[in-house]
Amino acid sequence: MRLERWQQIPTGTRDLLPGETARARQVATGVLERMRRWGYREVTTPTLEYLDALVLGEGSAAGDALFKLVDRGGEVLALRPEMTTSVARLVATRLRAAPLPLRLAYAGQVFRWREAGTGRLREFPQVGCELIGAGSLEADAEIVALAVESLEAAGVGQFTISLGHVGFLQGLLAGARLPEPERDDAQALLYRKDFVGLRALLERHHAGASHVNALLALPTLRGPAALDEARRLADAPEVQSVVSDLAGLERMLRAYGVWDAVTVDLSIIRDFDYYTGIVFEGHTAALGVPLLGGGRYDRLLERFGASSPATGFAVRVERVLSADAWAPDAVVAFEDGGRDAALACARALRARDQIVAVEVQGRAWEEVAAEALARGAGRALLVRAGTVVVRERGREERAVSLEELTRGE
Amino acid sequence: MRLERWQQIPTGTRDLLPGETARARQVATGVLERMRRWGYREVTTPTLEYLDALVLGEGSAAGDALFKLVDRGGEVLALRPEMTTSVARLVATRLRAAPLPLRLAYAGQVFRWREAGTGRLREFPQVGCELIGAGSLEADAEIVALAVESLEAAGVGQFTISLGHVGFLQGLLAGARLPEPERDDAQALLYRKDFVGLRALLERHHAGASHVNALLALPTLRGPAALDEARRLADAPEVQSVVSDLAGLERMLRAYGVWDAVTVDLSIIRDFDYYTGIVFEGHTAALGVPLLGGGRYDRLLERFGASSPATGFAVRVERVLSADAWAPDAVVAFEDGGRDAALACARALRARDQIVAVEVQGRAWEEVAAEALARGAGRALLVRAGTVVVRERGREERAVSLEELTRGE
Repeated sequence: MRLERWQQIPTGTRDLLPGETARARQVATGVLERMRRWGYREVTTPTLEYLDALVLGEGSAAGDALFKLVDRGGEVLALRPEMTTSVARLVATRLRAAPLPLRLAYAGQVFRWREAGTGRLREFPQVGCELIGAGSLEADAEIVALAVESLEAAGVGQFTISLGHVGFLQGLLAGARLPEPERDDAQALLYRKDFVGLRALLERHHAGASHVNALLALPTLRGPAALDEARRLADAPEVQSVVSDLAGLERMLRAYGVWDAVTVDLSIIRDFDYYTGIVFEGHTAALGVPLLGGGRYDRLLERFGASSPATGFAVRVERVLSADAWAPDAVVAFEDGGRDAALACARALRARDQIVAVEVQGRAWEEVAAEALARGAGRALLVRAGTVVVRERGREERAVSLEELTRGE
Repeated sequence: MRLERWQQIPTGTRDLLPGETARARQVATGVLERMRRWGYREVTTPTLEYLDALVLGEGSAAGDALFKLVDRGGEVLALRPEMTTSVARLVATRLRAAPLPLRLAYAGQVFRWREAGTGRLREFPQVGCELIGAGSLEADAEIVALAVESLEAAGVGQFTISLGHVGFLQGLLAGARLPEPERDDAQALLYRKDFVGLRALLERHHAGASHVNALLALPTLRGPAALDEARRLADAPEVQSVVSDLAGLERMLRAYGVWDAVTVDLSIIRDFDYYTGIVFEGHTAALGVPLLGGGRYDRLLERFGASSPATGFAVRVERVLSADAWAPDAVVAFEDGGRDAALACARALRARDQIVAVEVQGRAWEEVAAEALARGAGRALLVRAGTVVVRERGREERAVSLEELTRGE
């Protein structure tokens, strides 16, 4: 049957049915409420802005992804592609006299033109926050810690905040003596993961072998050893100061009690050009795209005539919903002879409205449990004769009776 | 100082600062929560729709007020001017198999192109609901009662729901034997309150004197005697069935306990052409424009191939905020010799975060109290030697001691 135009919605947009809308509202409200407790106050900016204001913030390259329209008065407007620029405009105008630091939050729809067929959304909801007027590592630590709490408040099971710094790449590119325009090219090649092209570009400009190696090693600079490795690879002073900033952040984030959820990843390249310091993304194993993204942008406000350091992030609400589908409340595995008890356990938990997946591939408990928790499951259960081994993130593994478990602890 | 383009926001849009955003969120959340308790479940539709889908719902005349844009694939899109059409599309497509009646709610930004200089918003937030699949008076009563509860939940002090019916005017125009195209002209003249033009049009078509009188009397058919007066003015059967429907609604709304907040107003003409039955608006004395509007639209869904009666309304969140400014928690008046006590009373209430306005024009208590409550003040207080007379909406006037009042009852 051929669908009529009026039966369809535009490419890259979505209808959300009641269950989905309830979950989206729960995510947005949960995150905003968490931000509110940290002192962030929500502001609202128009969905439509003057094109000039948006291009001033996003840069003209990002302007290509804007939905533009000309109103009947001949003014060129655009739908906002994110809200940091609008908040910067608000801070530089109506909030110019407000005492700093300013802690602001926001929630709303944003719009980006994308090629059809990429499956990417052209309209989606964001909820985020900005800490304006503080250039300290303390401010960065607050924002990263709040990002962790925001994903917790959003009900995301297991996730990681990957933490990088745009100064690391910039320091390497400066050290490699690449002329300014080629630095953007190199960054674009890295963003596209075109390492062959990157090597060719570097060699064309006679970059030294150590710099070529450091740049090509960038994608591997992730995880607990990343900072040591980065220190070893690059001795330029710009790079060393980035490394010591990240080490300082680690100490603060340990004090916030959130370091377990954070990992260093020096390969992060964000899609807006206004970042000047740390950049970070929230990931969950179930999803190939970030649930949140943010970083420090110390020069955005000066484009609006209000020079002030700033840092912030935004949560992609619809991606949190996509990640949900992969996160059952429990994954149930069993040992030989435990099948009947395991199925009874799953049935009982489902009757209590839990989403329960039973292991059907006969894999080893260690593998099942590790994957389940990495994908955000609430807990992994191993049913044995008479007892159930319960593994949850951040808790000691324990054994309970089947009865205890299904009675609802 | 000349403002740069980037320092401005487009005509008819607004930034909301933290206090305003908090109140807007409180209004939207309060209304949605009330709707949820009545069984309405929130859905989300895209801000951008195909122009064809919107014109199908709004009619091509309303199409002139749409913000249109052509995306890079050549598709003509528009920003939704309201959400009833989008919900109808959703019901006719993804919810086609859902059991009726369907109770749906929504909240989001809508966009209407308006001439500059009219001071009217081009982007504003709406929160509303639709009851789909029930053509009964019971359904209309539920929607009107929920409209009353929604404005209460939004924290609007004093308000009135004006209740009319599009069939009344249509019946009069049919009775006057006006040809079909001239009926639209007559309705447009009424909408613009051009009674001279209306009389000329009717006389040009030799409408009988009784019909001319009934049509010209339309703006006066408001208040408790409106139904009796309507019954007397027009004896066409279409008109009589409208009058008996409204009388039936009155009985039901008394049973809901909300009739006190409702008044019949047969002069209401709504701005969308899809209404087929009752129409209503929520007003507060402080504001010249409706806080809420809605009605029955039994033929909108069939435009989307899913014939089904329906009724609903939408709250204008930003107008609720505008009305706020006119509604202090208390207005304080005093009798001779009571000034010092009155000012102490105002000071004590303000210290408890109440908004308190003191009467400074020396008007009589009756006038001060009536106006204060009509404008939505929480209560009017008359300070006398030793006691305070307290008048609140819907409660017996009572006297309390100054101490009781300021201690916080």
